[in-house]
Formats: sequence, structure tokens, C-alpha cells
Amino acid sequence: MYYDPVEAMDRAALEELQVERLKETIANARKSPFYGARLAGVNPEDFKTPADITKLPFTTKDDLRSQYPHGLLTRPLDDFVRLHASSGTTGTPTAVFYTQKDLDTWADLMARSMHCCGCRKSDVCQNMSGYGLFTGGLGIHYGAERLGMLTIPAGAGNTKRQIKLIRDHNVSVLHIIPSFALYFAQKVEEAGYNVKEMPWRIALIGAEPHTEEARRKIEEMMHIKAYNSYGLSEMNGPGVAFECVEQKGMHLWEDAYIAEIINPDTGEHVAEGEIGELVMTTILRDGMPIIRYRTRDLTRFIPGQCGCGRTHRRIDRIAGRADDMMILKGVNIYPMQIEQTLMAMPEVGQNYLIELVREGVSDQMRVKVEIKDEFFVEDMRALQGLQKQIAKNLCNEILITPRVELCQSDSIPKAEGKAVRVVDRRGEED
Amino acid sequence: MYYDPVEAMDRAALEELQVERLKETIANARKSPFYGARLAGVNPEDFKTPADITKLPFTTKDDLRSQYPHGLLTRPLDDFVRLHASSGTTGTPTAVFYTQKDLDTWADLMARSMHCCGCRKSDVCQNMSGYGLFTGGLGIHYGAERLGMLTIPAGAGNTKRQIKLIRDHNVSVLHIIPSFALYFAQKVEEAGYNVKEMPWRIALIGAEPHTEEARRKIEEMMHIKAYNSYGLSEMNGPGVAFECVEQKGMHLWEDAYIAEIINPDTGEHVAEGEIGELVMTTILRDGMPIIRYRTRDLTRFIPGQCGCGRTHRRIDRIAGRADDMMILKGVNIYPMQIEQTLMAMPEVGQNYLIELVREGVSDQMRVKVEIKDEFFVEDMRALQGLQKQIAKNLCNEILITPRVELCQSDSIPKAEGKAVRVVDRRGEED
Repeated sequence: MYYDPVEAMDRAALEELQVERLKETIANARKSPFYGARLAGVNPEDFKTPADITKLPFTTKDDLRSQYPHGLLTRPLDDFVRLHASSGTTGTPTAVFYTQKDLDTWADLMARSMHCCGCRKSDVCQNMSGYGLFTGGLGIHYGAERLGMLTIPAGAGNTKRQIKLIRDHNVSVLHIIPSFALYFAQKVEEAGYNVKEMPWRIALIGAEPHTEEARRKIEEMMHIKAYNSYGLSEMNGPGVAFECVEQKGMHLWEDAYIAEIINPDTGEHVAEGEIGELVMTTILRDGMPIIRYRTRDLTRFIPGQCGCGRTHRRIDRIAGRADDMMILKGVNIYPMQIEQTLMAMPEVGQNYLIELVREGVSDQMRVKVEIKDEFFVEDMRALQGLQKQIAKNLCNEILITPRVELCQSDSIPKAEGKAVRVVDRRGEED
Repeated sequence: MYYDPVEAMDRAALEELQVERLKETIANARKSPFYGARLAGVNPEDFKTPADITKLPFTTKDDLRSQYPHGLLTRPLDDFVRLHASSGTTGTPTAVFYTQKDLDTWADLMARSMHCCGCRKSDVCQNMSGYGLFTGGLGIHYGAERLGMLTIPAGAGNTKRQIKLIRDHNVSVLHIIPSFALYFAQKVEEAGYNVKEMPWRIALIGAEPHTEEARRKIEEMMHIKAYNSYGLSEMNGPGVAFECVEQKGMHLWEDAYIAEIINPDTGEHVAEGEIGELVMTTILRDGMPIIRYRTRDLTRFIPGQCGCGRTHRRIDRIAGRADDMMILKGVNIYPMQIEQTLMAMPEVGQNYLIELVREGVSDQMRVKVEIKDEFFVEDMRALQGLQKQIAKNLCNEILITPRVELCQSDSIPKAEGKAVRVVDRRGEED
């Protein structure tokens, strides 16, 4: 039923394993110049539970930059067989180095991840993402082969050839970028095929953040089950956390990582189920362990047991970047929370704008929301009701009641390029 | 000294190994629908020496097409983990399937190949070719990792980033497409670096056919040693034959392949050292053995022992495609032979044209040759001398004395797209 029995390991035993591996990780990390200095005063015997990890300092992206290229390596360069690097076109790049053992661990985690959402040895997997320095390509590739699937390294682009390969080889699993999936579905129809008759059944769509709504749309348009995943190069790449067939959050593989969710301001753990910044520690990495890495990615642990029986905790889909956090009346708020609340309401249109303003001595949030034409009626009472409902739904999510202003379609100016969703006017006269 | 002791195996023992593996291959191949029928009457006990392989029928590209996709597979599809396919934009594509064992064999052969030209575990290898369905990318990648080199999957393009990676990570081995190498050397200089100060020492440049002259130019301009390799997807991909540090031909790994060189017209073996079509049999392939595959690639066995001590025979760089062969007065002639002879002469310019004409009852070859301006002098005697020398050099190579016509620079019309080097006028009135 599981790829690896560890997936359903008893929590107490799993946490013991984590502590054991954390101690090994501290000892190993100290062999690197960076952690040798930073962990000088740390005594591995002080670590009795996974929560003791808070005794260790954070590692940040800036640390990785300042240590570029070799400051975190625990072994001579000769022992490494793979390097992935960020493009570093702006500023110092970061690089991640892998020993053969690390590649094996990564392939195993990736194979487990794909198995967890229903992929099997008998599947045919077409990897439609680019290869190269991007960890998504080779990560999925090695995992698919490790699981024993027939793996087609199709790479990105060339829609016609992709379709032919899928049809010729009965491809049942696609690794496809979510933003490409809808375009691809359309191209398949244009080529004269019915998506319902395509041999695929599973799409792995983790490489870009996307909403639940986008996932459902992909599932509908492609007639496929789409599974979300989470990963980042600093933690190997994809295969850090993956959805099971329940599609209710991504199991984070806790035998390989210790995950924490913190308030990005205070560095303290948030309460169970609250949103915050994901902090990750590798406890199964050989050549380049990273301790308490501030991912800047926002998510929360999903409380409760998963129906699949796996005991590894689930994280929710990424709700944005910690750098996007707003603080209002002492409460941390993320734009993604507001977006998700708004987009769940059928009356809400395409666009919205969050304004933070100062009124007297207190800060306020105003949310301008475009309403679909069919709901933007002359009935003032209905509009006021809608306005109140939006404010209430937002308050349930962010614990603050914003002033909601309803707008007509297309009345909020659109930014060129990346959408501007938050304007902070608290420094201005209001 | 060798990656694998088999590289210097005693010839007699190597040939015994070949016969043993050929027998196994026949037995294995028969499990596939295609060879099950084609080899029905073959008795493995009839094979005593590698030369007995001539008792087996050829396999052609058309066979691979007609058997697409599964006709050559000896195992259930479940047992395969990789598929590479030709683009098949024109006509039926071909596909090659690999079991995990096949990928391991391929990675070992590739690692051996890279070791053979001087790559070591301590090297850092930047793979500058595209990945995906092209076997060159993943083939080199898996081999580099298998050898234990730190492998950077840079992929194609992005010259600036390539240069930064090479400098930041002390890249000593490049896998680079020959036609890109000269452009790249220029870009490195334009970026303000001296190629002599770059950390590289070895370029693997096998993915495209290229001349010895092009290799020497790459070596000079990049200040690097460039090594040629040979491979084709039907025989796994790269790693079929590779140059050793002697740079005198490519050792073809005879423990994994039985190679023959035939007259493409008659199918008979050519005399030792003569040019002809390379025919290849896999004797170490698990899931998709291919017997006596007509590669259409022209080369010859290089006679004699190699200074490196390896006993596996060497093939010469590919001299063109069998489909380009001309027959004149019963002699097989390949345009590449003429090109190489002409380009070795300092007086010869950029362009030439081969014309086949009928004169009375006999066929003749005319070769128009552009002469560099500084040699195109008024001294008729000097020009006649040059003309005779060209005819003599060509006769030494192709055994026929063509009529040589000297032309001024740019006087031979250039074709748009692929150069037209041969015009057959034997059907026309002359």
C-alpha cells in the first residue's frame, strides 16, 4: 500500500527517528565551514524531542549566498556528483551540491511522492518540464525511473510531438506546469482529440504555485486527476511534500525533513493550524545539510489525520511568500488569505485591491472588490448584504473586519506585468 | 589506468566473450515478436567466432519503423524505465526502450568513454547540450555522474550563465556541440576573459559530425583538448565509441557491441582498413537487442594497435552517410573522401562541386575546385601544377583520377540551405 513503510510509521517512533537523525545532522553539518562556526556551542545531547530544534539558529537565503559556493559542504568536492544552481542573474547565486547518496535519497523521496498519489511501476510517465539546472526536471525524471515507470524525457515545448508521444505510448502520468496545462488541453482538442479519450489519468502539477480553483479547472478540462507537490532546490528539489489521493494537503516527508511553521516576524512557532513561514531542516542529507532554513513560503499544517493512513503531517498549498506579509493591528495577514476568501464567493469578479490606510491613530484595511455584472444590481439592499457578507467572510479568515467597497467589473486599474494587490498608504495623508 | 579492465582484454578472450554474448543475445532477441520470427531458423550453436555473425540477417531503420513501437521488446512493457524516440515529424518515428539494467550498462559505457579521454572523478563536468529525448544530454549526464564527476546540468543556451558556472565551479570538462564551440570561445573572449585562463581542459564534442580540421580549430581557439565520440540512439546513444588521449580514432567498445564494416551495396565485409557502412549488434542489451543494424554511417576500422594499450578496435571519424555513396567505374566513392582530400590542401578555397558525367560509354568525375585568391595567379604553369597535384591527391584517396577544374573564389554557386556537393549528370546529354 505504501512505497515505504516509514510513510505510516507510528508518530512517536517517527519523532524518535527525527531526533536521532537531527543529532546526526548536527554532527555532520559541523564538518562544514559555515555550521562548524555557527553550531560551535551546540551539544547534540540537548536534543530530546523534535521541538528542541528551536535551540538551533535559522539559516537564510542570505547565508546561502554569503557561503557560495562551498561553505555548507561537509565533504571534499570530489565526493559530489551533482550541482544545481540558481540563475543568479541578479546578485550572488546559490548552489546546491549532491553526493551520490543524496541523489539516491532524493530519487527515493520522489518515487515515494509519485506513488503516494497513485503512480505505479506499470504507468508510463511523460516528463513535460524542462531539464537542466531547474531541479523539477531531473528530480521528477529520477523519481519516475526509481519507481519503475516507463519514463519519457519529452522536455518542454513541441505540443504536437507531446501529443503524439502520449497517444503512441499510452502515457498515463504527466508532469506538466500548471500554467501550461490549460493551454495544452486546448491544443489537444484543436488537434481533433477528445481529452476524455486520452490515456492519461494523473497530472503532477507542482512546479508553480496555483490555487485550488486552478487545479479543479485543470482536472475538468483535461479529464485527469491533478496532484500538487512542494519542493525547493535548497531541500533537494521536488519531493519534499506531495499530495496523496485524498487531495487534502501535501504530506511532508518527516523522516527526511523537520518542518516548522513560524511567525516570520518573531521567529516563534505559530499555533497548530495557523499560517506562517515554513522552516525546513534536512535530516537525511549527506553532503550539504541545511538547518532551519527560512523558506519564505507561507503555509500551515493541516490538523488531524489523513484518510490515507500516512502519519506524516500535511501542509496546505503555499499561500504566498513571507515577504508579502502585512501587519495590521498586530495581526499578520497575507494577501493570499484575502484572495482565497474572495475567490470562493461566486459574486466576486476578476480583480480586487487591498489598501492599508491610517485613520486617526489606528490602521485600517480597505478592500475594493469587483463584482460580476450579473450581481451588480440596482437593489441597494442586496448589494449591502453582499458587502457585509464579504466583510464577514474576510473577518473569519484574517480576524480583522476590513472596509469593503464593491466595484463594477474592470473598474480597478490593472497593473502591467505582475498584479499589484496591496497598496500601503499608511505613510500618506488620508 | 583503465576504467574497466575489459578495455585492455586480450583479443582472443575478448572475441570469446563476444561469441558468448552473441549467443545470449540471439536467445534473448527471439523473445521479441520481430526477432522471434526473423531468427526462427537460427541455431545459436552455429556461432563459433564473431565472424559467424554474418549468418544473421541485417536490421534496418525501416525494420525499426515497421516494428514501432514494441516489436523489438523482449520483455513486458512494465520492465522498462526509459524511452527515447526520434522526432518522427516526417513519417513513422522510431523508439528505443531501456530497462534499468540497460541504463546501468549505458552509464557504465559512457563513464568508461569519458575516463578513456582523461576525465576523472575529481573533474567538474558541465553538460552544455540539451536534455530531453535527445540521447546526448541524459547519456552524458548519467555517465558523468557514474564516473563520479561533479556534474552541472547546464543545458543548452544562455552563454553568460554558462561562463559564470564554468568560472565559479572550476569546470574542467565540457560537453559541447562542435558547431557551438567556436561561437562560445568568441563569446568568452568578448566577455573579457582569456580562454587560456579558463579552468577547462577537456571538451567532449561528439554530438555532430565534424572534420579533423574543425577539431583542431576548436582546440586552438578554446585552448582545450577536444575528443570525438560516436553513438546513435539505436545503440543506446553516446558511448558506443570514444577517442582515447591518443586522438587517433575512437575505440568501439567490443564487449558491448559487435561492429562490422560492409560494402553498403553488396552487404559483404570490406577489406581491413577500407571505408564502408558500419553495422552494429548489441551484445549487452537486455530489453531491446538489435542485431546487425545498418547504421548508414560510413567509417573504417583503423588498422594496428593503439598506443594507449586498449585492445578494442578503433573506428575513424564518420565520413558521411551510406546514402551519399557514388559508384563510378565500379568503385564506391563518398563525397566526404573528396572533401577531406581537398580541404587538406592549403591552396583550396571554400567551395567545390563534384559532377558525374557520361562521356561516350564511360562515366567520368569532374571536380570543380575554388582556389584561394593568393594562389589563383597568372602563372599558367603553376596553376597546371596545382591542378595535377589535386587530381593526384584525389586519385590516391578514391582510386580514380577525376578531371579537375580550378575556379576563382565565389565562382561556384552556393546552394541555399544544405550545400549541394554532388551533381549526377549521367542521365543527361553531355
